[in-house]
Amino acid sequence: MFTPNPIGYVRSPYTDTKAIPKGLGVRHEVEGILDILTEFEIGLTDVEGFSHLFVIWAFDRSEGYDLFGPSPADNRPHGVFATRSPRRPNPIALTVVELLGRDGPKLRVRGLDMLDGTPILDIKPYMSSIPAEQLRRGWLAEAEARKQADSK
Amino acid sequence: MFTPNPIGYVRSPYTDTKAIPKGLGVRHEVEGILDILTEFEIGLTDVEGFSHLFVIWAFDRSEGYDLFGPSPADNRPHGVFATRSPRRPNPIALTVVELLGRDGPKLRVRGLDMLDGTPILDIKPYMSSIPAEQLRRGWLAEAEARKQADSK
Repeated sequence: MFTPNPIGYVRSPYTDTKAIPKGLGVRHEVEGILDILTEFEIGLTDVEGFSHLFVIWAFDRSEGYDLFGPSPADNRPHGVFATRSPRRPNPIALTVVELLGRDGPKLRVRGLDMLDGTPILDIKPYMSSIPAEQLRRGWLAEAEARKQADSK
Repeated sequence: MFTPNPIGYVRSPYTDTKAIPKGLGVRHEVEGILDILTEFEIGLTDVEGFSHLFVIWAFDRSEGYDLFGPSPADNRPHGVFATRSPRRPNPIALTVVELLGRDGPKLRVRGLDMLDGTPILDIKPYMSSIPAEQLRRGWLAEAEARKQADSK
């Protein structure tokens, strides 16, 4: 197996996990920078043509894992692979961001949910979507329906 | 930084990278199994409610990286972070699969583009899509347009 090494770091307004919006229906609109190490800058060539990017990053301030537990989006527990919990066997995270612009090795993006200083492992172009009408969203859809029923 | 450990392995009909469809407009419809280690099975609880999953896996048969190079989808070179090339600084891959069913620790899925025996690092639920009309697809869209023009 390989040893992960940061290709850069996230510059984000969040310095505390408590400040990051979590739970049902949350939208991440915060802007910040994917600050890629200059040695990797050439690898960003043509990335600016894409409106959205996958950012793969490390939950570097999470320790250990829970295979089954609660989620901020639901009061019922779920398996870790059915959630986005940071406490995973491999502490790897995935965020889709909107690319606003690029200045050399710095990507200005919207939609951050990472802490400032988070190590970035990879960036990939977002090439296609599964149409919304083809998605089933399991416990998340059920939790949303319960929340909506409770609010009536 | 953490040390990645497989949570399971891909059971795929592909035993040779040459057999995996690549290039413009390719669709991955092949079925196979995400064979999760039994010690992690409880972490799959409720995953079956989702129609699609993100699979994060390791390019375990790729060595080294090219920051700028050709892609099977285009005869022009691009930065590695604007492509899905396996030769990346961190050899981490991302595939969206359709979940067809679950038998205990085995997930039956469609849409594999991995070799048989590939180590799986993580599984995450696919919760939402960027609407297609909001996507810009850079060099990929340009290559598709050139291909279409050439075929006329």
